[in-house]
Amino acid sequence: MNLEDVIRRALKIVKPTDKDRKRLNSVIERALDLAEKYSSEIDGVTGVSLEGSAAKNTWIKDRAEADIFIHFDPKIPKGDLEERIIDLGSRIIRGLGGVPRLMYADHPYVEGVIDGITVDIVACYDVEPPNWIGATDRTPYHTKYVIENLREGQEDEVRLLKGFMAGCGVYGAEIKVKGFSGYLTELLVLAYGSFLEVLRAVANWHPPIIIDLERYYESSEELIELFRGNPLIVIDPIDRARNVAAAVSNTRLSEFVLASKLFLKKPSLRFFKGKEERKIRLSDIRKLSKNRNFVYLFFRLREEKPPDVLWGELRRSEEGVKRALERLGFRVYRSGSWTDERRHALLLFEVDQVTLPRYMLHKGPPVYLRNAEEFVELWMRRGIGPWVDGDRVYVLRARDETRVSRLLKREIKRGEVAISRGILDSVKSGKLGENLGHLIEFGKKHEELRRFLIEFLEARPVFLRK
Amino acid sequence: MNLEDVIRRALKIVKPTDKDRKRLNSVIERALDLAEKYSSEIDGVTGVSLEGSAAKNTWIKDRAEADIFIHFDPKIPKGDLEERIIDLGSRIIRGLGGVPRLMYADHPYVEGVIDGITVDIVACYDVEPPNWIGATDRTPYHTKYVIENLREGQEDEVRLLKGFMAGCGVYGAEIKVKGFSGYLTELLVLAYGSFLEVLRAVANWHPPIIIDLERYYESSEELIELFRGNPLIVIDPIDRARNVAAAVSNTRLSEFVLASKLFLKKPSLRFFKGKEERKIRLSDIRKLSKNRNFVYLFFRLREEKPPDVLWGELRRSEEGVKRALERLGFRVYRSGSWTDERRHALLLFEVDQVTLPRYMLHKGPPVYLRNAEEFVELWMRRGIGPWVDGDRVYVLRARDETRVSRLLKREIKRGEVAISRGILDSVKSGKLGENLGHLIEFGKKHEELRRFLIEFLEARPVFLRK
Repeated sequence: MNLEDVIRRALKIVKPTDKDRKRLNSVIERALDLAEKYSSEIDGVTGVSLEGSAAKNTWIKDRAEADIFIHFDPKIPKGDLEERIIDLGSRIIRGLGGVPRLMYADHPYVEGVIDGITVDIVACYDVEPPNWIGATDRTPYHTKYVIENLREGQEDEVRLLKGFMAGCGVYGAEIKVKGFSGYLTELLVLAYGSFLEVLRAVANWHPPIIIDLERYYESSEELIELFRGNPLIVIDPIDRARNVAAAVSNTRLSEFVLASKLFLKKPSLRFFKGKEERKIRLSDIRKLSKNRNFVYLFFRLREEKPPDVLWGELRRSEEGVKRALERLGFRVYRSGSWTDERRHALLLFEVDQVTLPRYMLHKGPPVYLRNAEEFVELWMRRGIGPWVDGDRVYVLRARDETRVSRLLKREIKRGEVAISRGILDSVKSGKLGENLGHLIEFGKKHEELRRFLIEFLEARPVFLRK
Repeated sequence: MNLEDVIRRALKIVKPTDKDRKRLNSVIERALDLAEKYSSEIDGVTGVSLEGSAAKNTWIKDRAEADIFIHFDPKIPKGDLEERIIDLGSRIIRGLGGVPRLMYADHPYVEGVIDGITVDIVACYDVEPPNWIGATDRTPYHTKYVIENLREGQEDEVRLLKGFMAGCGVYGAEIKVKGFSGYLTELLVLAYGSFLEVLRAVANWHPPIIIDLERYYESSEELIELFRGNPLIVIDPIDRARNVAAAVSNTRLSEFVLASKLFLKKPSLRFFKGKEERKIRLSDIRKLSKNRNFVYLFFRLREEKPPDVLWGELRRSEEGVKRALERLGFRVYRSGSWTDERRHALLLFEVDQVTLPRYMLHKGPPVYLRNAEEFVELWMRRGIGPWVDGDRVYVLRARDETRVSRLLKREIKRGEVAISRGILDSVKSGKLGENLGHLIEFGKKHEELRRFLIEFLEARPVFLRK
């Protein structure tokens, strides 16, 4: 298939049909009506608006979202605003026939699924730039900027780009993904013109990459200095102090670059299709894990919490355990987290080996220091040696424990592993093991976990899977 | 036992008896007579002299040596001198009733054992300082300097120091030891006054240590700059450009410092006694090697050669194998060489483990480079992955071989291990193993090897052995 064919067929995947539009519009209409109605009874509300991809007409098929914003007077204190949006949002979602779910990003909002469409009821302050109070205050200006600047037809270019990113696993600003936000993809299309031009540019990116649509900065040196450490800097057209790409992880950025290169070299619909739905056999998992070494923490979640909170805890804990394993003397090849976001979670690590050598080299002080004699006396009774090599004293020290699972368990018990408080008790009473057998057993009933395991074992980003 | 008692009793160990003296003097007399007689027939000989510890009266009991020097006219070419000393030396040793053995240091000399005393017939050029032609030309001046400067009674202080160093395993400038030469110990006594004062100074040494008896240098900065990298700098009183301690290894120096500290803290005859002669049981070797990992090269020597040559080859090869093992991914805790100097030799390494993990992390290029795509394509078929982490691509690569002995064997076969030419063929057709069982079997008949093994396993310098 040539490039044009692929893009033509990809558009069919990402572009909503008239039926999709009608359904979304109907939900939006009802949501806005209810929002207007209920908020008129509430003190401090200055208006109601539709924001996000629905307002900008850049949403992609099967990912329709209605972001209903309730604008508040800046005089309302933050606590009051939060209380009011929780109350108002819950009533609106219930009014639409949905089940309200309280969500937290930097701020609380209320979510519900109506007719297959995610409806978010979000609060913002009615302020002029750059007098931002909350993180959502910029959103209406983002919507306005994109609507005003996107040329006729570029909406589909945005859709193609979002579809490509989603298919490659780099789309979404949530903590779980740390990828590209919808607004960021829109700015990329504005910067380069079309889906294909974005990919061609990205395939040639060398960090730091700078995109300053409104030319707020005169020199790139100034900009790089200001956003030091950011490989991708996309200046927010409505806020010169903000990098829209700040939350994109280095890994997601790199995956996007690699995917762009590979797509341009050999275009394929594969890049838009995301995870395949093929049947996963347990024997595949067993075969793939042969001769490899793992250690995992599998545990029950004690309370439901917003995904961004839970994923933040999981990612931080994953890092903490990784550091602990390395401190203990293991090499961590890779790590990953999984959760069904409700009941169970898993931190999984692939390590070089599951046992350390019984004896480790223990480096003592140089013989010239006073404590060399103390070292000798202490270790004469406890270790093998001591001997002198170069100007230092050494001994071989026996480890009382050599298995990765027991060593890690002990470190956790001692409080030496940086595991997030929010899941620490769960982890402690969970399962800590090396043998994937237990997980595979659990995976029998749990298709999602099974999928995670096979993907972890295959160790490839989605666009490289066969 | 207090310090005085220990020193009094140590002196009995190191000081020759009248009988010892008579025996040495008789051998010297006969050797000098023969040397005079034979050399008078040879063109270019300007004189004959006794040098070394016998001449200086600083030799220690059971280590008597007669160094007979034949002085040659500087006009004689080096090749001729070597030819003549080999011929002359052999005749003298035979004339004394001994079996001449050709030795090489930087130069050939002839050795024989007469009445239990080692007799060396050495050539030197009859030159004035600093017009040195060969390495032995300084020796007569060293002898003269020590005789002129050593005060009455200091000979015994030198003997105590030599005995202490010998007992602690740091005495001897030969390649096998890389320790302190006799001349160096004499200079130390001249510098500090007595055995005990030497030890007190040494216990407080902090490198670089500078001893410049003749005050040739005005500033220590100049001296340190000139002999950079040397932890111990002892300027030769008869040659300001030479560091008498240049050949002392860092390890031997450090052992001497540590032994001095420990002796002063708790004086004991142990420090003078050297290797104990207790019976070594095979079960001790088996017990001590439990839970530890080794790899060794055991081989037959194809030809006899001077010990310094053989030990040089062994040490360099030991280093070469160590580097190869580390390159392969093993940690080498310790290494050692053994040889009976005639038929067999051993290179022994203690390693962290005997197998590597089946999979190793293989780091690819950053995604931003052109070869990232090539890396992906290449490794898609061969490894596990590839995946992206940070800005790079990685895969897990399977090792086709994981055992240390097989990996090392292959590296040697490929010529990738820096083993000295002089023993390479022997090594290749020797035994390369991990299990000390084979060595222990051989050690049954070979007391010396058994001793080496137990000492290697105990991993302590001689002064720390119980």
